[in-house]
Amino acid sequence: MKGFASDNYAGIHPEVMQAIAAANDGDHAKAYGADPWTARAQELFALHFGQDARAYLMFNGTGANVTAMRACCRPWEGVICADTAHVHVDEGGAPERMGGLKLLTTPTPDGKLTPDDVARLTIRVGDEHAVQARVVTVTQSSELGTVYQPGELRALADAAHARNLLVHVDGARLSNAAAALGATFRDITTDAGVDVVTFGATKNGALGAEAVVFLTPGLDDGFLYLRKQSMQLASKGRFFAAQVVALLEGDLWHRTAAHANAMAARLAAAVHGLRGVRVTQAVQANAVFAILPAGVAETLMERWPFYIWDEATGEVRWMCSWDTTVEEVDAFGAAVAGAVAEIRP
Amino acid sequence: MKGFASDNYAGIHPEVMQAIAAANDGDHAKAYGADPWTARAQELFALHFGQDARAYLMFNGTGANVTAMRACCRPWEGVICADTAHVHVDEGGAPERMGGLKLLTTPTPDGKLTPDDVARLTIRVGDEHAVQARVVTVTQSSELGTVYQPGELRALADAAHARNLLVHVDGARLSNAAAALGATFRDITTDAGVDVVTFGATKNGALGAEAVVFLTPGLDDGFLYLRKQSMQLASKGRFFAAQVVALLEGDLWHRTAAHANAMAARLAAAVHGLRGVRVTQAVQANAVFAILPAGVAETLMERWPFYIWDEATGEVRWMCSWDTTVEEVDAFGAAVAGAVAEIRP
Amino acid sequence: MKGFASDNYAGIHPEVMQAIAAANDGDHAKAYGADPWTARAQELFALHFGQDARAYLMFNGTGANVTAMRACCRPWEGVICADTAHVHVDEGGAPERMGGLKLLTTPTPDGKLTPDDVARLTIRVGDEHAVQARVVTVTQSSELGTVYQPGELRALADAAHARNLLVHVDGARLSNAAAALGATFRDITTDAGVDVVTFGATKNGALGAEAVVFLTPGLDDGFLYLRKQSMQLASKGRFFAAQVVALLEGDLWHRTAAHANAMAARLAAAVHGLRGVRVTQAVQANAVFAILPAGVAETLMERWPFYIWDEATGEVRWMCSWDTTVEEVDAFGAAVAGAVAEIRP
Amino acid sequence: MKGFASDNYAGIHPEVMQAIAAANDGDHAKAYGADPWTARAQELFALHFGQDARAYLMFNGTGANVTAMRACCRPWEGVICADTAHVHVDEGGAPERMGGLKLLTTPTPDGKLTPDDVARLTIRVGDEHAVQARVVTVTQSSELGTVYQPGELRALADAAHARNLLVHVDGARLSNAAAALGATFRDITTDAGVDVVTFGATKNGALGAEAVVFLTPGLDDGFLYLRKQSMQLASKGRFFAAQVVALLEGDLWHRTAAHANAMAARLAAAVHGLRGVRVTQAVQANAVFAILPAGVAETLMERWPFYIWDEATGEVRWMCSWDTTVEEVDAFGAAVAGAVAEIRP
Repeated sequence: MKGFASDNYAGIHPEVMQAIAAANDGDHAKAYGADPWTARAQELFALHFGQDARAYLMFNGTGANVTAMRACCRPWEGVICADTAHVHVDEGGAPERMGGLKLLTTPTPDGKLTPDDVARLTIRVGDEHAVQARVVTVTQSSELGTVYQPGELRALADAAHARNLLVHVDGARLSNAAAALGATFRDITTDAGVDVVTFGATKNGALGAEAVVFLTPGLDDGFLYLRKQSMQLASKGRFFAAQVVALLEGDLWHRTAAHANAMAARLAAAVHGLRGVRVTQAVQANAVFAILPAGVAETLMERWPFYIWDEATGEVRWMCSWDTTVEEVDAFGAAVAGAVAEIRP
Repeated sequence: MKGFASDNYAGIHPEVMQAIAAANDGDHAKAYGADPWTARAQELFALHFGQDARAYLMFNGTGANVTAMRACCRPWEGVICADTAHVHVDEGGAPERMGGLKLLTTPTPDGKLTPDDVARLTIRVGDEHAVQARVVTVTQSSELGTVYQPGELRALADAAHARNLLVHVDGARLSNAAAALGATFRDITTDAGVDVVTFGATKNGALGAEAVVFLTPGLDDGFLYLRKQSMQLASKGRFFAAQVVALLEGDLWHRTAAHANAMAARLAAAVHGLRGVRVTQAVQANAVFAILPAGVAETLMERWPFYIWDEATGEVRWMCSWDTTVEEVDAFGAAVAGAVAEIRP
Repeated sequence: MKGFASDNYAGIHPEVMQAIAAANDGDHAKAYGADPWTARAQELFALHFGQDARAYLMFNGTGANVTAMRACCRPWEGVICADTAHVHVDEGGAPERMGGLKLLTTPTPDGKLTPDDVARLTIRVGDEHAVQARVVTVTQSSELGTVYQPGELRALADAAHARNLLVHVDGARLSNAAAALGATFRDITTDAGVDVVTFGATKNGALGAEAVVFLTPGLDDGFLYLRKQSMQLASKGRFFAAQVVALLEGDLWHRTAAHANAMAARLAAAVHGLRGVRVTQAVQANAVFAILPAGVAETLMERWPFYIWDEATGEVRWMCSWDTTVEEVDAFGAAVAGAVAEIRP
Repeated sequence: MKGFASDNYAGIHPEVMQAIAAANDGDHAKAYGADPWTARAQELFALHFGQDARAYLMFNGTGANVTAMRACCRPWEGVICADTAHVHVDEGGAPERMGGLKLLTTPTPDGKLTPDDVARLTIRVGDEHAVQARVVTVTQSSELGTVYQPGELRALADAAHARNLLVHVDGARLSNAAAALGATFRDITTDAGVDVVTFGATKNGALGAEAVVFLTPGLDDGFLYLRKQSMQLASKGRFFAAQVVALLEGDLWHRTAAHANAMAARLAAAVHGLRGVRVTQAVQANAVFAILPAGVAETLMERWPFYIWDEATGEVRWMCSWDTTVEEVDAFGAAVAGAVAEIRP
């Protein structure tokens, strides 16, 4: 079953598993986040993101993204995003139906918004007939495996703040981005002007845990209510907090993410120059996007699970995870080379 | 920390913990429920509830309840419930704001609806100005620790179906009810005329897992979309399914629930006849409700965590869980007796 | 067709009709409320309610009530009301589905809330699991034809404000209340501590026009957006404003309302003392509620349209309007007397 | 004030005004649409659209569009539209927040969708992570003043129905389209495969009235509830129905619309060939879109109100209405010519 389909296909990192088991210590703990593990997670978020960071554990990325955006927007306000953003294409309409949020979208070449996009989509300010832009959401690393440089984030934040907009980062793979940049979480969020983050643990070795981390003081007013109402409040909160603690207490988050990134780079190198294979996006995190000669994807998928990203172009996505091995990458790279070689020129 | 505050304060049963660890087998598994553990959970639900049962794993009870009710109601339809129902008083307005659902409530003496309640609340049928009743939701065992007899459920279901209403069971503690009744799940759901169930695992020894189980064929049309949109779809679904499998594969669900029930009965017996102590509800599952002499609750709470249920009357709730021990019950019973004895007559 | 069914059955007062025609002056006017008639309506609202009043024209009462409450509540906040309130029983679930608002209800003997009700329903403050009360809404005159005295409103407002709640008045029949009390609008709203009002014109002689009038400065921030989004913004706004101007420019609002009130009082007097007829509510505005001997209602309804208010008790509602005549009241009163007389003792 | 800003700036056609006055006949009428005028409107809709047509009067276009789309979509279904569609850019986020609807948009050169657009936007069918397309909405005549030919509509409907999608027409200016095409309403709706229509009266001489007209039997199940809940149910319904009756009883709808169209054609002809003036869209209904030499728009707007359509390009919109006169068009055309002549070459 192992392959390159998704970092969601991977299991739980042993250290995370151990942390869950340790939190199951035979004693009772207060429910709904009033437990020591949650308190420790909050301390670690403050350590990693800055002392004003206020973190709220959530079940999943959709819940975290939608609830974070709900916290930022009044009913007539909307969210600027790339048209490849997970919130736009992969959340089953939750932003609109559960959050009431209109998304203001734009195409991009690489899944990354620019200050010009923000300017162009912030229109009709004060016009009661138009949803008013309030949030810019960026995905870091992006759905296309690309990474915003800290300077790019700062420029976006400046463009947003100049228009009274907030910046949200969908960080389902924030660890991959930080590892790729050699940056701290703080470098690429708080210090870049970001206001609120969805911090993802699930794809980076957790069983299932995400957090909404508010960086701008006051922005989380009432968020406890909002999380509960958004059906994202775990009763046995300690077991969700323990996962995050395991990742953030030492360098586990970095080891797992850096490894996944390295595997993607190795895979990109392995297919580089193969006839008819074109890597379509810069490989900056743990994903490789490529267009293959006709028929090759189908051949490969018989043994190696992965996804066709774009049915129209045949573009594929190969995703590496914390448990992808060098051997698997090499074997798959060889398989690609072999399948390509069998195509008649 | 151990006490009688909530079955949510308890940890993970070792067999459930072991099942999670076993599901973390080093291999990849398809995400979003397309994995063997989820398939096995579905088999077990069909075994326990009947072959038409269709189960969908959810994160938590609020999510399961709200999404189940969303599946049953068109926009102008509402839900009949007791005014003590969790959906009414403890879900942060999620039914209304996330589900758009109006709740049609009634007081009850014991947290249990009757056919008369259903008749009385199903009014103004066909009147476009009034929300049309569509679902009757009952909590089994109830928020007050009482249990519906199978015959009571059947009578409710008949009253509901005669009016074209559906019956939903909020079964956060369905295992406790089944164990208390010496009944199978099927006896108190499918065979009693219930249409859809929220099946709770969390309070009965899981880390965190619930399921919406549809018993009436066709009622789950589109529910995959609804679950995703309701932000209740886990990516690493195997670890949620594994918890349910652990409970339902053998008799673990029954052992844990029956034990919690027995502890509540033992506690009720221990305080029975104490001067000024009045047990206010029939102790039929794992909760004991009582009114104590003034000041006693405060004294007890210094050592034993539990909740004041009703600030106005001083009524307290003592909840037993799968890990409550005989020693704890006896010690606590003695503490109650001691505290009461210190009150001047 | 004329009878006592509803003040909604009446037509348009000639002076209102004339005002609409006058606004149709052959010239163009800016759409969406940027016209002189709307500006004049705003001036008149300031005159009648106080200089801080900010008025927004709406299509109908449901739209006005729901949008006003949306303006007052954050997503986790709810609305206290009597269980007879129009917002609870006659708005098709719009508060819940369109507004996301949970209603916190209580029975009352006369359709009127008391400070004790407010205290009793403002519970679990700060508890993330419970919707937080934010608004107290009262209907003036009430759905049962009763009227809040200014002192009663002040006491409610004090009870509300002491708990950081706002007071909303559903004033679909505010003119009837003011006329009945011999009070100005300001006396029974702004000066009684009310924060926001739904002002009704439709039932008092208009074609169809209501307004949300904010009395507490700042509370209408963003309301232009909210009205538009709530689908309550008229394009040819002048014709809605003109109706309100016609009512408020002189004393038309008072003449129409006082007349309807007088007709109800006359009708109550006419049936007073008839054998088996019991007027069930104080007749303080333009409605008479009564319980009749069995069969009498059905006989009367053959000629005179009116509604059975409560199927269970047989209570009827007789509603008078601006165009109810003395002759009609007297004829109907005689018909009641006659029908009663035919009942065998 | 008269100019070319909007057909919403025009008043009420005298025949419509007269019909409202006639409906105000001194008698009472049942509220909420149970009156003879509403019954007559229904007959006329059946006459104009086909015997299966079921019409529901609404307050305004946003309300009609959103409620119509609500009727067609389950919670996880969305709406395909042009990115210039009124529902996307001018309804204050009502589709998303009030309707929970995700809009699936595409750029177009002329405001008109094609079957290829429908095919391209109907993707990921069966994928629970993606909103499922359910409705194709087209605006006829479009926001850019263009008109769908009956054959174009039929091709769209075929493309939609082949994918199990429904076709909705936002017909705020449906009369202009029909008049422009020399077609009946039936030709361009029912007979072209359209399932549901928003029929606009307001812009064509009414005070304020729209209707949702269902053409496909069964599609309106429960719509009475939905209209009420969507806050679009008028109490004194006769005065809204009377407006529609006035337009549809004879040929008033056609006279008004054809006149407005003719005025737009005359204006387009008047500015044709002026140096630096480029008419940017085919003038097929009652709007003219043009790009003018820099500064000309500002000069003209001092005397003649109209809107800048696109701040980026300076494109202007000139809208003609039922009351635009030949003299006004000629004077404005001359003003354009004069202003252009003053620009230095």
